[in-house]
Amino acid sequence: MSVETATSPFAPKRLAKLPPVEGVSLASYATGSRYMGRDDLLVAKFAAGTSVAGVFTTSKMPSAAVDLSRAHLQSGKAGALVVNAGIANAFTGKAGARAAMQTARAAAKAFDCPLEQVFVASTGVIGEDLDAKPLIAGLHAVAPEMPATGGDYIGAARAIGTTDTFVKVATRTVTFGKHKVVLNAIVKGSGMIAPDMATLLAFVFTDAAIPAGVLQKLLSESNDVSLNAITVDSDTSTSDTCLLFASGCKKLDGPALRSVQDKRLKAFRTGLRDIMQDIAQQTASDGEGVSKLMTIDVSGAEDDAAARRIGLAIGNSPLVKTAVAGQDANWGRIVMAVGKSGEWVERDRLAIDIGGHKVARAGRAVAHYKEAPVARHMRGKQIHISVNVGAKAGKGRGKARVWASDLTHGYISINADYRS
Amino acid sequence: MSVETATSPFAPKRLAKLPPVEGVSLASYATGSRYMGRDDLLVAKFAAGTSVAGVFTTSKMPSAAVDLSRAHLQSGKAGALVVNAGIANAFTGKAGARAAMQTARAAAKAFDCPLEQVFVASTGVIGEDLDAKPLIAGLHAVAPEMPATGGDYIGAARAIGTTDTFVKVATRTVTFGKHKVVLNAIVKGSGMIAPDMATLLAFVFTDAAIPAGVLQKLLSESNDVSLNAITVDSDTSTSDTCLLFASGCKKLDGPALRSVQDKRLKAFRTGLRDIMQDIAQQTASDGEGVSKLMTIDVSGAEDDAAARRIGLAIGNSPLVKTAVAGQDANWGRIVMAVGKSGEWVERDRLAIDIGGHKVARAGRAVAHYKEAPVARHMRGKQIHISVNVGAKAGKGRGKARVWASDLTHGYISINADYRS
Repeated sequence: MSVETATSPFAPKRLAKLPPVEGVSLASYATGSRYMGRDDLLVAKFAAGTSVAGVFTTSKMPSAAVDLSRAHLQSGKAGALVVNAGIANAFTGKAGARAAMQTARAAAKAFDCPLEQVFVASTGVIGEDLDAKPLIAGLHAVAPEMPATGGDYIGAARAIGTTDTFVKVATRTVTFGKHKVVLNAIVKGSGMIAPDMATLLAFVFTDAAIPAGVLQKLLSESNDVSLNAITVDSDTSTSDTCLLFASGCKKLDGPALRSVQDKRLKAFRTGLRDIMQDIAQQTASDGEGVSKLMTIDVSGAEDDAAARRIGLAIGNSPLVKTAVAGQDANWGRIVMAVGKSGEWVERDRLAIDIGGHKVARAGRAVAHYKEAPVARHMRGKQIHISVNVGAKAGKGRGKARVWASDLTHGYISINADYRS
Repeated sequence: MSVETATSPFAPKRLAKLPPVEGVSLASYATGSRYMGRDDLLVAKFAAGTSVAGVFTTSKMPSAAVDLSRAHLQSGKAGALVVNAGIANAFTGKAGARAAMQTARAAAKAFDCPLEQVFVASTGVIGEDLDAKPLIAGLHAVAPEMPATGGDYIGAARAIGTTDTFVKVATRTVTFGKHKVVLNAIVKGSGMIAPDMATLLAFVFTDAAIPAGVLQKLLSESNDVSLNAITVDSDTSTSDTCLLFASGCKKLDGPALRSVQDKRLKAFRTGLRDIMQDIAQQTASDGEGVSKLMTIDVSGAEDDAAARRIGLAIGNSPLVKTAVAGQDANWGRIVMAVGKSGEWVERDRLAIDIGGHKVARAGRAVAHYKEAPVARHMRGKQIHISVNVGAKAGKGRGKARVWASDLTHGYISINADYRS
């Protein structure tokens, strides 16, 4: 990075303390590949029998790491994870596929697990070849020392960061049968963040025993209301990867889990959605150059997916984002963004609230609209926008919540100089 | 405007001289509605029998002016046009519809033409009520003095501008049967510019005699490769309007025109596409805060429409736009943007050229890629990006050209302060 990046105003004063997750071991390492003086490699080892679920970028230009991990997800089992920051290994042709495979092979050997149980992820510059050698050297350096359970989650989150200005971690402890199980999450992402899914790497670790099929459904449903509901810049990365690892050390009594509806999963399911929304909000809060975080609630849409797309049209609009950055209660731009979403919306039923204040009803400004309280809200760091789009002649029940950063001079400074 | 806006580096050193168009008369006026010390009203009067064609915003939140003009387009005939700058008359409910109708009624009376032959357009702030009175007063002030043919096209272009930093006009003279006919175009637009169609008001005037049905097809086909192929900020206005008026003073011999394929239309058709592309490029060149203009050629797509969407995904990407602004030959972001387009693209066939220099072939950087000549190109004002996306196993023949502005600190400064 050749540019000084101001720390996000949303950086937490203190970081959460993350307990160990039984059957999960982490280590990080400085390979010197691109970044100097910092760890840039994360290695994770999982207990035998660990289940895995994943969601990946929808980009038609997926990185070699995404190709490999997507293929390995078929196995439903995970033995190891290797993540590097600095070079995305995207758009690197056969050489890139080879580098990803060499890394995975080395991990399979180091941790004595089948090759198809190794996952890799890469983030950084697109189009530059990844040299697997320093990654493999790092793997060999850390692997022999890794216990069955342990590691520094904050160090791990730091090792996978690129333009991130703060370390993003979260933890929850939930009831799982007669046990308490841990959910630990680490995430990196700051730019090239748009849904489907955000340009980010997110890893969630738990000691619960959940079979891969059910785990995948749990991840997909919570991903839709978390990482797929944030946007920084509308740009979708080649490298987005979210993996959820369940070591299986804490088992449920009774019959095998077959459905996310299983009552024994209730607390876990809530905890997972909660931790995913936590890291999603943290990611939007560390959007490049962010000064304010928008929380956008859409209701009255045709369905929930339509509501999310409308929310993202608002959150992605450069004109809405700059109005928020400028503390300008310019709600006409929200009207514009709803109108361009392409979704079923009814102009003459549209209602808008900002910061809890009524702004528009039935397709126009409310009578005696007073800007002062709205302007006061716009001066805060947390901006709340709520719209009811009146679809289906006002009978639409679709709703969604979306989080988005604003668009500032800081974003321009970061991206006109940093090569990502 | 509370912000000092630097003039676009693409502002022309001298403006084109526009000849009169027979049967078209223009006048402008300062109503004092919102802008002080400048004209903000354009009035046009057309000869009896003038044909009209139009394309409008795809926004689901169309302005009252768009509603009215879209309805009147059914008549195929035009007697008058009234355009105001400063207040968009969008999201203004029944009061807005009333103001648009009052204005149109006054014009119909002033020019003694049927109400359904009056067109209106408004640009400016969304959500504020438009008072028709000063517009009607302006209309009454100018109407009695307007000759059958004449008017100041440059003054007219100036009167409809908002954040525009230069006056955008163009003129062509083409053969039309035994006549020479004139095409004059004026356009405003600088922000809230995205295709379908760009946030702009564009008016094209000609003295050719072309029936409304054929005129509409001519306008639609040229609009697709001009105003619908530019983007500044991906934000689609509530107010986009492009109208083409043909006074009919210059008539063709022979049978009535029934098809755009009619050979007698060949020069006119080319001239129309040409003038539309001219004003489209001028509009992108006056994008808010623009420092460089991208010309993006996409080939190898599934079809021309897919190629255009891919071009717009590149031209709309904040990361591509900031890289261009920063003179950074960061072609990985072009890969990213192609990947997120959602169109049929084949990663391992993707080819990219910048400024005529080969950058990537077959899904990776070219061997011995040298950045120096590309970096040199990036330091210019005109940036040329060419991609072949290799769809249909390399057999795709779809192509399109798109123009886009970059994303600079100037854009942020303008939009974090100016209420539009």
